[in-house]
Amino acid sequence: MSRSPGRKQENHKISRELFVLTYGALVAQLCKDYEKDEDVNACLDRMGYSIGIRLIDDFLARSAVKKCRSYSETADMIAQVAFKMYLGVTPSVSCNSATGNEFSLILDKNPLVDFVEELPAERASLCYCNLLCGVIRGALEMVHLAAEVSFLQDRLKGDAVTEIGITFLRKPEDRKHRR
Amino acid sequence: MSRSPGRKQENHKISRELFVLTYGALVAQLCKDYEKDEDVNACLDRMGYSIGIRLIDDFLARSAVKKCRSYSETADMIAQVAFKMYLGVTPSVSCNSATGNEFSLILDKNPLVDFVEELPAERASLCYCNLLCGVIRGALEMVHLAAEVSFLQDRLKGDAVTEIGITFLRKPEDRKHRR
Repeated sequence: MSRSPGRKQENHKISRELFVLTYGALVAQLCKDYEKDEDVNACLDRMGYSIGIRLIDDFLARSAVKKCRSYSETADMIAQVAFKMYLGVTPSVSCNSATGNEFSLILDKNPLVDFVEELPAERASLCYCNLLCGVIRGALEMVHLAAEVSFLQDRLKGDAVTEIGITFLRKPEDRKHRR
Repeated sequence: MSRSPGRKQENHKISRELFVLTYGALVAQLCKDYEKDEDVNACLDRMGYSIGIRLIDDFLARSAVKKCRSYSETADMIAQVAFKMYLGVTPSVSCNSATGNEFSLILDKNPLVDFVEELPAERASLCYCNLLCGVIRGALEMVHLAAEVSFLQDRLKGDAVTEIGITFLRKPEDRKHRR
């Protein structure tokens, strides 16, 4: 009485809702485990970092992108290719410094909080999506780009948009030689 | 210095690797939290249940499927529409009982364990993907179908395939009236 499925072909595209709800379960578990928001945030960042250093291989293989030649190109790549690929959204990018090493990814809508109404009052310092910062940091490190990544604004905290800040830690001068 | 993304349109399709790695982080955290595999399994099932009772609305809205008229149709729907939608794979379905209320979803390949090599020796009883059982159970309950859902085989434990058993708890006779 076995029936074969109509379409056998597998692909890597999925609807994101199960992911979003599973992420919510992860954050809820960490909120049970840690009393302080700072500890939850740090744990999410660490987890994200571990994910990022593994996800980068998948990203490079699947996206087939070429090597970025500037921080600006790298920021665009994260927004337009990586976010699109893994979260189904494309943040806009802005450069925040004259030195050209600080960027913001600005999300009008953050799919990771689709099922979150608001943060509980006792969790006002929680960076709910902090995993993403760790993922970006870890992935960048694997392509030899040290960066600090953190939330600068968060709609969950009443801000108008959600903004992730990326500060590349090496100077542009270091990378001028094209390989 | 703000740049708009090339494609503004959002969609709900994402690559599943970030999800798979995030799920791994969740299981790893629960393994830190609970010494006994049974407690991790129970927690994953509970979390899945909470997810399933929310995910069903998304599923019904997005799939636009018609009401199933038999357990067999329901099992096919889970395999061919829901698994495809949320995990990007289509298990085959087999009916395991003459009474027609026991089914198996058989996965040749389980994307949720893509990055898992094997279970650690001290975690031999872990049902790594037990969240899925809870999701199915929760979602079915919201369409008034009580079911028991559990892993019958698991490739992570050396079985040839991964098999999820679904036993519908009401008798087919109860559902003969078509609404």
